[in-house]
Amino acid sequence: MNMHELMDDKLHEECGVFGIYNTEHIDVAPYIYYGLTSLQHRGQESAGIAVCDTGGPAGNITWHKGMGLVSEVFHQERLSSLKGNLGIGHVRYSTTGSSCIENAQPMVGTYSKGTLALAHNGNITNAEKLKKELMDCGTIFHSTSDTEVVYYLIARERSHTDSVENAIKTAVTKLKGGYALVVISPQKLIGVRDPLGLKPLCLGKSASGYVLASESCALTAIGATFIRDIAPGEIITITGNGYSSNYCTVQHTPAHCIFEYIYFARLDSHMDGIPIYDAREKAGRLLAKAYPIDADIVSGVPDSGLTAAMGYAKESGIPYSPVFQKNSYIGRTFIKPTQEERESAVRLKLSVLDSVVAGKRIILIDDSIVRGTTMASLIRLLKNAGAKEVHVRISSPPFLYPCYYGTDVPTGRELIAHEHSPEEICNRIGADSLGYLKLNDLSEMVDGLPICKACFDGNYPQSPY
Amino acid sequence: MNMHELMDDKLHEECGVFGIYNTEHIDVAPYIYYGLTSLQHRGQESAGIAVCDTGGPAGNITWHKGMGLVSEVFHQERLSSLKGNLGIGHVRYSTTGSSCIENAQPMVGTYSKGTLALAHNGNITNAEKLKKELMDCGTIFHSTSDTEVVYYLIARERSHTDSVENAIKTAVTKLKGGYALVVISPQKLIGVRDPLGLKPLCLGKSASGYVLASESCALTAIGATFIRDIAPGEIITITGNGYSSNYCTVQHTPAHCIFEYIYFARLDSHMDGIPIYDAREKAGRLLAKAYPIDADIVSGVPDSGLTAAMGYAKESGIPYSPVFQKNSYIGRTFIKPTQEERESAVRLKLSVLDSVVAGKRIILIDDSIVRGTTMASLIRLLKNAGAKEVHVRISSPPFLYPCYYGTDVPTGRELIAHEHSPEEICNRIGADSLGYLKLNDLSEMVDGLPICKACFDGNYPQSPY
Amino acid sequence: MNMHELMDDKLHEECGVFGIYNTEHIDVAPYIYYGLTSLQHRGQESAGIAVCDTGGPAGNITWHKGMGLVSEVFHQERLSSLKGNLGIGHVRYSTTGSSCIENAQPMVGTYSKGTLALAHNGNITNAEKLKKELMDCGTIFHSTSDTEVVYYLIARERSHTDSVENAIKTAVTKLKGGYALVVISPQKLIGVRDPLGLKPLCLGKSASGYVLASESCALTAIGATFIRDIAPGEIITITGNGYSSNYCTVQHTPAHCIFEYIYFARLDSHMDGIPIYDAREKAGRLLAKAYPIDADIVSGVPDSGLTAAMGYAKESGIPYSPVFQKNSYIGRTFIKPTQEERESAVRLKLSVLDSVVAGKRIILIDDSIVRGTTMASLIRLLKNAGAKEVHVRISSPPFLYPCYYGTDVPTGRELIAHEHSPEEICNRIGADSLGYLKLNDLSEMVDGLPICKACFDGNYPQSPY
Amino acid sequence: MNMHELMDDKLHEECGVFGIYNTEHIDVAPYIYYGLTSLQHRGQESAGIAVCDTGGPAGNITWHKGMGLVSEVFHQERLSSLKGNLGIGHVRYSTTGSSCIENAQPMVGTYSKGTLALAHNGNITNAEKLKKELMDCGTIFHSTSDTEVVYYLIARERSHTDSVENAIKTAVTKLKGGYALVVISPQKLIGVRDPLGLKPLCLGKSASGYVLASESCALTAIGATFIRDIAPGEIITITGNGYSSNYCTVQHTPAHCIFEYIYFARLDSHMDGIPIYDAREKAGRLLAKAYPIDADIVSGVPDSGLTAAMGYAKESGIPYSPVFQKNSYIGRTFIKPTQEERESAVRLKLSVLDSVVAGKRIILIDDSIVRGTTMASLIRLLKNAGAKEVHVRISSPPFLYPCYYGTDVPTGRELIAHEHSPEEICNRIGADSLGYLKLNDLSEMVDGLPICKACFDGNYPQSPY
Repeated sequence: MNMHELMDDKLHEECGVFGIYNTEHIDVAPYIYYGLTSLQHRGQESAGIAVCDTGGPAGNITWHKGMGLVSEVFHQERLSSLKGNLGIGHVRYSTTGSSCIENAQPMVGTYSKGTLALAHNGNITNAEKLKKELMDCGTIFHSTSDTEVVYYLIARERSHTDSVENAIKTAVTKLKGGYALVVISPQKLIGVRDPLGLKPLCLGKSASGYVLASESCALTAIGATFIRDIAPGEIITITGNGYSSNYCTVQHTPAHCIFEYIYFARLDSHMDGIPIYDAREKAGRLLAKAYPIDADIVSGVPDSGLTAAMGYAKESGIPYSPVFQKNSYIGRTFIKPTQEERESAVRLKLSVLDSVVAGKRIILIDDSIVRGTTMASLIRLLKNAGAKEVHVRISSPPFLYPCYYGTDVPTGRELIAHEHSPEEICNRIGADSLGYLKLNDLSEMVDGLPICKACFDGNYPQSPY
Repeated sequence: MNMHELMDDKLHEECGVFGIYNTEHIDVAPYIYYGLTSLQHRGQESAGIAVCDTGGPAGNITWHKGMGLVSEVFHQERLSSLKGNLGIGHVRYSTTGSSCIENAQPMVGTYSKGTLALAHNGNITNAEKLKKELMDCGTIFHSTSDTEVVYYLIARERSHTDSVENAIKTAVTKLKGGYALVVISPQKLIGVRDPLGLKPLCLGKSASGYVLASESCALTAIGATFIRDIAPGEIITITGNGYSSNYCTVQHTPAHCIFEYIYFARLDSHMDGIPIYDAREKAGRLLAKAYPIDADIVSGVPDSGLTAAMGYAKESGIPYSPVFQKNSYIGRTFIKPTQEERESAVRLKLSVLDSVVAGKRIILIDDSIVRGTTMASLIRLLKNAGAKEVHVRISSPPFLYPCYYGTDVPTGRELIAHEHSPEEICNRIGADSLGYLKLNDLSEMVDGLPICKACFDGNYPQSPY
Repeated sequence: MNMHELMDDKLHEECGVFGIYNTEHIDVAPYIYYGLTSLQHRGQESAGIAVCDTGGPAGNITWHKGMGLVSEVFHQERLSSLKGNLGIGHVRYSTTGSSCIENAQPMVGTYSKGTLALAHNGNITNAEKLKKELMDCGTIFHSTSDTEVVYYLIARERSHTDSVENAIKTAVTKLKGGYALVVISPQKLIGVRDPLGLKPLCLGKSASGYVLASESCALTAIGATFIRDIAPGEIITITGNGYSSNYCTVQHTPAHCIFEYIYFARLDSHMDGIPIYDAREKAGRLLAKAYPIDADIVSGVPDSGLTAAMGYAKESGIPYSPVFQKNSYIGRTFIKPTQEERESAVRLKLSVLDSVVAGKRIILIDDSIVRGTTMASLIRLLKNAGAKEVHVRISSPPFLYPCYYGTDVPTGRELIAHEHSPEEICNRIGADSLGYLKLNDLSEMVDGLPICKACFDGNYPQSPY
Repeated sequence: MNMHELMDDKLHEECGVFGIYNTEHIDVAPYIYYGLTSLQHRGQESAGIAVCDTGGPAGNITWHKGMGLVSEVFHQERLSSLKGNLGIGHVRYSTTGSSCIENAQPMVGTYSKGTLALAHNGNITNAEKLKKELMDCGTIFHSTSDTEVVYYLIARERSHTDSVENAIKTAVTKLKGGYALVVISPQKLIGVRDPLGLKPLCLGKSASGYVLASESCALTAIGATFIRDIAPGEIITITGNGYSSNYCTVQHTPAHCIFEYIYFARLDSHMDGIPIYDAREKAGRLLAKAYPIDADIVSGVPDSGLTAAMGYAKESGIPYSPVFQKNSYIGRTFIKPTQEERESAVRLKLSVLDSVVAGKRIILIDDSIVRGTTMASLIRLLKNAGAKEVHVRISSPPFLYPCYYGTDVPTGRELIAHEHSPEEICNRIGADSLGYLKLNDLSEMVDGLPICKACFDGNYPQSPY
């Protein structure tokens, strides 16, 4: 639960995936549970686990999924009933309207070659077209998620292909967009990453087997060690004999999603060679160089702006200090003040450390401004507590374009940067100055890693259809 | 939910109280709900609200209480059914064994002079003796909490006393220990603070009325402004005409609980004139003076050690940096790894920012060491991530004595400081050096405020019986 | 769940009580569970069990109570946690407004002489007066039930009396009304029946101990054998050594509630020497003698009129046949059709066996008519299915007077007999003829047993104050 | 809830279906709710409703399904969210192992020609073969129920067929077994009955539209009038313009399931021209002719034996009387006595009316004997209560063969008739005599209707594959 859910003023990612193969026939469901808990920031709407026993009756996959947090969906008894040494798990965030159990993952089914379970993070941009083609061939759909499209593509291909890897290899040539898949097949755990590398997926080594996860923090959580990121377009197969790789025939220049570094990924993860903490801290340093200002303290909006604030403080030499206390008991069942009282909602979630703030000139960092309403409330709270000046610095450029790859950027009028210039925004939020990270600095922020920054500049790495 | 619940390695406070009187006959239940949510860190076991309408039928108090967090006990419908412009609320932490709905508060009843509702934070040290006396006079008890003792003392006194304030004045002369009471009487809201001032209680002004709360952060949460702390031994009465005060006849040198400043109170509260943030930051500065060491970064254990770490960093000039990422999705229903796997539990809750830590000499601050097991795990995690040295600094002296006033200090062997010298502790936790805040520095930490620090030095401000 | 809950057109009783002492230290909670399930028809609003171990620490009573059916309040785990060889239980029906957990029973408390648990079926007609007296002596009340009055009277008396039996003996002299009490004291199980014998209570022998219950059906349910009814005014004490009796000093001519025989008690119970089945069957025979009519079949409204219909059929020689099928899946959470659609509600609950009914002249028996709306609907359903005539016979006289002893007779206008003559009622419900059991026949129905029939004739056996 | 669930000693049917089309665009979900409640005796494991608005966006089907009774799965809010004038519903019983939400119905999906919802009562005997064929063509299965097979057969056929009726017509030629289907298509409501007429389905007229239901009692429940049974092999289509019929090309001599008449159907239903009440009463009469005996009373086991007992009494002239009182509060959450205590379980559910039984020679009727344990307990209870003789009559022949059409007949050793002759059974259950309905009388019981009585004689109407 973070403050953005209350304030409904942040971008959302769609999912986290996790997979594990244990060669010593130890039940993996508890590891999946802990792994998913570490990926919970990627999705809080539904959670699911599917497992099978590679030594048991062929293809006997058992699973459970439900709406809510991992700890709400899985109780001890439920977890104990999921027996098997091979398994995958999923946490899901969803856009309005599609929040239902039918869309929860993993998806499990039986087809001519046995059983298959699949979990998916990402967005297939040509899903509607593929869905129509599949329906024309007689496929029936039970949900509105694009996961079903991926699932059926693979299963149909598998009917006339010698191995599931080859079926996947063929199937994914049809997919456009960003995706990270984990698949139980059911003697193998398979991981797939889209050719653009838009969505993250990494490999780790556990005590007796291997692990796949959306972020390295999920490896650490279960005591596994990070081996490497899955390459864009790579299809990795894990069996009792170790792991091996195949590659999609489609090739692209990689374009890793910059927003993982700015906001989505957990601070302790590494992604495609870059520690998330370092990227965010560097964004703060770059802001300090681009928009220096004389002030008494540098601070960040909890928790999204804290790391960039550290970087700004170091680069500028102005001391870092917290200025807000967060109430961590505001969960999903919390009764929010009515819409007119947005400021009350902000005040319940974040309150000012007034002895720190009084009489001070403050540089306040956050990762982004979506609607601007929350930032306006925070500045008002600081000024009411005696802050003399509040200078806002944002560790990303202004959003201007929609994302087709699973990030839920609000449209048009809701997006303050879409309607207003930075000067106007500065005015509307009541800041004394405002600076956004420069578009050119994004690349330096991630040490030159090839990135997709289409939400800022409109240069999409691939046609969506 | 904070990390200590997972690790079971922190001290616990017992309760938070809240009271409000609105002169414009607006329903106060939502304000109590928000106030209690801001006091949730003081108790997560049960929550309750009692309200009455000062313009309605005399003494018609309605209430609801239940086990769990405020947001679990109260749903919208429930909250809407609590009608009235005068109300009190309570959140409770409890020691093992007494966790049951019978002990939840507020306590509500009917007696010869009408109805009375009462909520209580604290510990009556002579409760067993008073209970026996009351039973000898025919009183029947339905719970094991000392709140019932306080309630019956006041109600019995009230039967032959002209006003509830005078009944309280007489009743509290019998009470030993620390307590903060809020009472609906039912045309008045009354607040009482023990003569030692052990337990906190403060007064605020809301848009149309007055508010009482255990901490000032609950005033801020509902947009009320802080007026002042209730004085030790003060009985404050709030009616439609404002507020007035009475005083207990028993007088003591005040002895405010030092642990509110060290750990219990929320960072943004002020208590008896001292901003909690400032006290904790000063503790860090005092530690830096007492135990300087050459290092690369200063950091704190989230969230309890962060503020003292800021102070240590400023005083020493060594840069502050976070070294741990906290997983905030580990709630009460989380399935913990088994006891043998304590380190796994720590790792799920806190994970190392390895790019920050590698090759560094770290000064790590926390507010206290209870069992020492968590600190040992954290140091191991840091060293595994490449930390060259870990120097531990604790922003309070070692616990050596039991607390009779409501703080749940573990006994004897569980308490590492009870069995081992600081040198031995340093060894056992694997630190490179260890320094505890000096006993003499506690007073400076709170600018000379008169304090109870019996858990550190055994000097109790009052005989318990 | 019976049809009357849906149709809200029957009288309600208030409670059932159960007590058991096992001399071989076997846990009694499961027996109480089964006993209460057999008394569930007496109350469906709340259920509770209190137990103690006579060999354990003195006075350690554990209990649980909750809203709902016995099977909803007690799950296996909950039941297993209630350890002890001595226990009492309670099921409660309640009048509107007082439906809350505070009023659930048993009531458990601690007082100067130890602990006491009490459960109560009945109505204390002078409860308000007694409550005022107790409050004047300093007693505080936490509920609105008269059980608390009885409890405090006994507990206060016990403080200065040598035994709990003597305390009860003195306390009950103050009570007016009807009551059956079961008390844990805590080495003894005590049962008390009011001097009028208004409320039922009986004694049974189980494999290793004794049992008290509101009705003999609860003895049968657990395999215990019926010994005898508790006498009016008797105080029975059960210990490890067997049972013994005391008697209230107040004496009255007994006046057993006639409505137990007409409707409340379960068909397989015996009460004060009369099998309930026999009484109801005889009521049917008496109706046949008083109101003979030529017809094709005799039938009853399920389930309340079935037994009298058997009696009418035998006496008249007209064959008995069911005419309605009952839907037994209409429980408490069932969404009822709106008020305007009363007939739909009736139709969902009872549907006509049309092949039986078509072309037939039917005598339809029920135990009573409260509002008349349900009976009108049933007659319409029968006629729509082709019944040529419907003659209604009611196995009790018309209600004309309120009951002060716990039966919830609706007031004035809601009661069809209060506003209309039998002829008018016959017309309003659309019957071809209507006959009520004659007042004089009530005595013969129960073989001359002394009864209270005040709801029919206004002759109350005792002043209520 | 009936007694057999407690005693686990009755056969189980699998499902009930309901469909409704309202031409005036009134929401049908409440009618489906009431209809399903009237079919609840056919299945208590899961319930589901799917609706669509024929005037709304094409194919927008909304649905909800869940585990439990209709009244547990659907609350007011849930029901209100199901908007539309066309809908189907389902209640499901299931054999052990397949009790899971994935198997709940209706099944809803999207395919090339739009959307389709389907609910199904019955058993497809060649489901495994068909499933394999479908998987060979690329179909993926998500559940273990044969409903998915029927659904995919129809949907695939529909892809290249001009109308859904023609698709169904072709698809069902492949199905073996018994089935009744209701389908939303989504401008039409379609009902299908298997060519053997094994599973029931009937048509009714409601105020503004038409209704399909497994039994006529569901029509009555919502105030609809019975039109006729759907013919074996008929495909009925209901639209805004009324209804029309198609017929399967496969033709068979009808073979209606005799067990609907013996036990499954509700007493007030009519099925293929026969009132269920009349069939059961006639079974009693036939028993009286076949096995006359001198006795004092005739009675039945509630509720399954009551109607045949009426018939036996009439034919024999021996008076009918109830001998057992049923406890209707023993629901699904009831904690049953342990297995060794079967008799306790029986006693909790049924208790003897001892004043009726003492000294009497009793003829006791039930519809069937499965394991024989319950009947043995009942006879013992009656004898313990003083019955002089107990003569058992069973209104069906002994079970000897498995049912392939959805009735869950226990196998081999569990089935007492499979291992023992009637004489041995009579001895084992402790009866004074025992008579089963003669095989030849089954036909007379249903007035010569063509029936499937394979469970009694092994003559299956169709090869299962």
